Formats: sequence, structure tokens, C-alpha cells
Amino acid sequence: MPALADDIGFLLSRASGLVVRATNDSLAEVGLRVRPYSVLVLACDEEGGISQRDLAATLGLDPSQVVALVDELARRGLVERTPSPADRRTKLVAATARGRELRDRATELAGSGGQQRLGRLTPAEQATLRDLLTRVVDDPA
Amino acid sequence: MPALADDIGFLLSRASGLVVRATNDSLAEVGLRVRPYSVLVLACDEEGGISQRDLAATLGLDPSQVVALVDELARRGLVERTPSPADRRTKLVAATARGRELRDRATELAGSGGQQRLGRLTPAEQATLRDLLTRVVDDPA
Repeated sequence: MPALADDIGFLLSRASGLVVRATNDSLAEVGLRVRPYSVLVLACDEEGGISQRDLAATLGLDPSQVVALVDELARRGLVERTPSPADRRTKLVAATARGRELRDRATELAGSGGQQRLGRLTPAEQATLRDLLTRVVDDPA
Repeated sequence: MPALADDIGFLLSRASGLVVRATNDSLAEVGLRVRPYSVLVLACDEEGGISQRDLAATLGLDPSQVVALVDELARRGLVERTPSPADRRTKLVAATARGRELRDRATELAGSGGQQRLGRLTPAEQATLRDLLTRVVDDPA
């Protein structure tokens, strides 16, 4: 009977929880937590903005959770909802100039928070971990 | 600026969420989800039972969450609280015979659920992933 400590699913949950906690602590300096930070990054990276549906799919969240996160960022003036050029009934979430500015500092902070745990691995090992996790996460081709 | 999709913390959260969801789906057959299943496994594996404090530390949960999980399993007759031989004020959570019986089937189901995603990796790659995650999770020596 395998022990829980050897179970990859269990290890994934524990590692994820520890890294999220450390990253939340680091992001506190800019008043963000991991989830709204992730929304901000995606809103910055997609040229012209990203739909709430795509945000939900990318982050693995319910649409209602995404609406709450976007509302929070919009209240702080970090993102805004704009009509999609392709279909004006669809709103895209786009970063404001202020959001882009905060993102740079937030990414530095998130990186240093994550490395508190991940820094135990060499850069080559981190690359291996990234590749393996990408294959676990990716949709089948 | 690194894309979110290359961020190891983000990949850990996504992978963990996907594996937990698949495992919950598999465990539904025995009326368990990942968290109570994990408590049951730890209660089975520790000779004589495990304290709620150790459960919380191992699972990375708050004590109040652990109490609720143990209550749920106790109501179903899968675990029971017994006084610790070392200190009768401390209660240990021990699996009942019925809990041990269910655990065997639950472990099969949890394994097959997890493999829906993890089976994309070869056994050698899964071993590498397990080793890397163990080092991320382990307390410093």
C-alpha cells in the first residue's frame, strides 16, 4: 500500500499550497494575492485584452470567481472591461497603464516568493519540473 | 517578462487542481473526496492512530478543517478518536476495521483517477516528478 507521502497528487497539492502561500506573502507589498495577480498578468499579456471565459479556462476557475477577481482589479484601476472588436457583446479585460506598471513590480515579488521553496532545486531541475508539469496540464493535442 | 504559462507556481496550481478533480471523480464511488481520503490514509498508516495536530501539519490544513474532516469520517464509522497512551488528554484518530477495508478500494480508485493526467508521463518521469516535489515540500533538515 503506497504511503500518502509518495503520492504524486498529494505532493502536488502540498507543493502548490506552500508556493502559493509564500507568493501571497511576497505579493502583499503591492496588495495582491496569487489569483488576482494571475488575472492581471493575463490581461497584460493578451494584446487588446482577454475574455472572462478565456480567463476562467486558463486559470481553472468558475466564471463567477473570475468576475469577482476582475471586479476587484477594476475597482483599483488596474484593468478595464472594453468591448471586443470582433463582437461588441463580448467584453475583454485589458490592463490599464497603471496595471502594467504594477505588474512589473508584482512579477518581481512573485518570483522571489516562489523561489523561497523552488530555489531548493537547481535551475536545470526547475526546468525539468516545468516541462513535466506542462505536459500534465496541457490539453490533449 | 515571463508568461504565466511558464511559471512553476502557476503550473503547480493548475496540475494540482486537475489531479484533485479527477481523483475526486474517481473517489465518488466510495463517497469520499481527496481530503477525507487523505485523513483516512494517515489514520490507517500510523500505528495506533495520529493526532489532529499531526494531521493538520501533514496535510497543510487548519486545525478546524481537520476537526470537520475527522467528524465526517467518524460519523461514517471509518475512524474513531481514542486517548493517546502517552497522554490521555490527547486524542488520536485511528482507522476502524471498516475504515481499513474502505481504504484499500479507495486507494485503487484514487490511483486510477490520478493516472488520468499523470499517465501522460512515463513511470520514470513520474518518479522524477515525485523526487522533485518531495524536495520542494520537505521541511529543511
